[in-house]
Amino acid sequence: MSSKTLFVSFEGIEGSGKSTQISLLQKHYQAQGRSVLSTREPGGTKLGERMRALFTQEEKMSDRCEFLLVSAARAQHVQELLLPSMGKYDLILCDRYMDSSVAYQSAGRDLDVDTVHQINAFATQGLVPDLTIFLDIPVELSLERVDQRQSGNKDRFEKQDQRFHEKVRQGYQDLCKKQSDRIKEFDGTQDSTLLSQQLIQSIDRKASW
Amino acid sequence: MSSKTLFVSFEGIEGSGKSTQISLLQKHYQAQGRSVLSTREPGGTKLGERMRALFTQEEKMSDRCEFLLVSAARAQHVQELLLPSMGKYDLILCDRYMDSSVAYQSAGRDLDVDTVHQINAFATQGLVPDLTIFLDIPVELSLERVDQRQSGNKDRFEKQDQRFHEKVRQGYQDLCKKQSDRIKEFDGTQDSTLLSQQLIQSIDRKASW
Repeated sequence: MSSKTLFVSFEGIEGSGKSTQISLLQKHYQAQGRSVLSTREPGGTKLGERMRALFTQEEKMSDRCEFLLVSAARAQHVQELLLPSMGKYDLILCDRYMDSSVAYQSAGRDLDVDTVHQINAFATQGLVPDLTIFLDIPVELSLERVDQRQSGNKDRFEKQDQRFHEKVRQGYQDLCKKQSDRIKEFDGTQDSTLLSQQLIQSIDRKASW
Repeated sequence: MSSKTLFVSFEGIEGSGKSTQISLLQKHYQAQGRSVLSTREPGGTKLGERMRALFTQEEKMSDRCEFLLVSAARAQHVQELLLPSMGKYDLILCDRYMDSSVAYQSAGRDLDVDTVHQINAFATQGLVPDLTIFLDIPVELSLERVDQRQSGNKDRFEKQDQRFHEKVRQGYQDLCKKQSDRIKEFDGTQDSTLLSQQLIQSIDRKASW
């Protein structure tokens, strides 16, 4: 049991290396004897994963439906997993969280940003990460990496065109500037071991262990 | 093709007779040569029906998730079916719509009513029914009717206790008083043929055909 849990979310466009970094960080901190919860959005719960399947695979989905559906999964994730885990773990590593909706559904889909913030606040019950790590990569590299890792089964977001991904990336960069205290940008094109060392430094600085 | 579509929604607690009345009205107006679209929420589209299955069956669902999920289905219904149907039909009959969230998710689940109205407005893109028919029945009768029609497979809402249904019914009654121009209350305990005649009068008064 830890009285102070550090809640870290990871953001970035497709192929930015979030899951690789989360896996490296989990190993690092567990080797140090820290208790680590690794989770993701949409998903993280049984119901959330069922909503994720609709979210990533259903071709015919309106932009507002997309945002409300990912928010529903987020609300379940917060209530069922994240809030009860506060105080139980030293570290929570979450692959995507509320900022994904600002980047994808507002910047990417052109939904009103104030509405996205309001519904984010409702879905999260005000639970904001202590630190958000934004892994920035160029869209060309994103598309290359997605092509390499896929066996022809791209999801609904991976199938979007370059212009959509450019808008999402710009959305993240703008958000970083506006919330620079919480969101830290890292160069996701670097060697993954070097990048991991930078992330460890950043997390260690925030942790009160 | 009709230039003016009358959009009528039906509200009420479980077993209030909405689907019976919608079926009678559809027959009546089709016999008069009117084009009628009959639909329901959550549902009405392929994706909406998949969300409905989660909504009605998943036991472990937070109140906020429930509201956001039904709103996602509503957003899809509005974008994919209702808006494109405006002007194509004389009459749209919709089994549940935005008022269900005020009654079930705000009055029933105690979510903030202003937030429910805001998210309703976002999900519906401001599409409000021309007429809403609220079929009021006592909770005791609701529970009896649900018991009679089920073969042991009650959904998540039908399994709620009497107190929940009382709160939902009260939520509908309060909403009727506040929006009496749009929402009309009818006694759902009446003989279904007599009730249908009253609904026909009410719809004919609103229609500009």
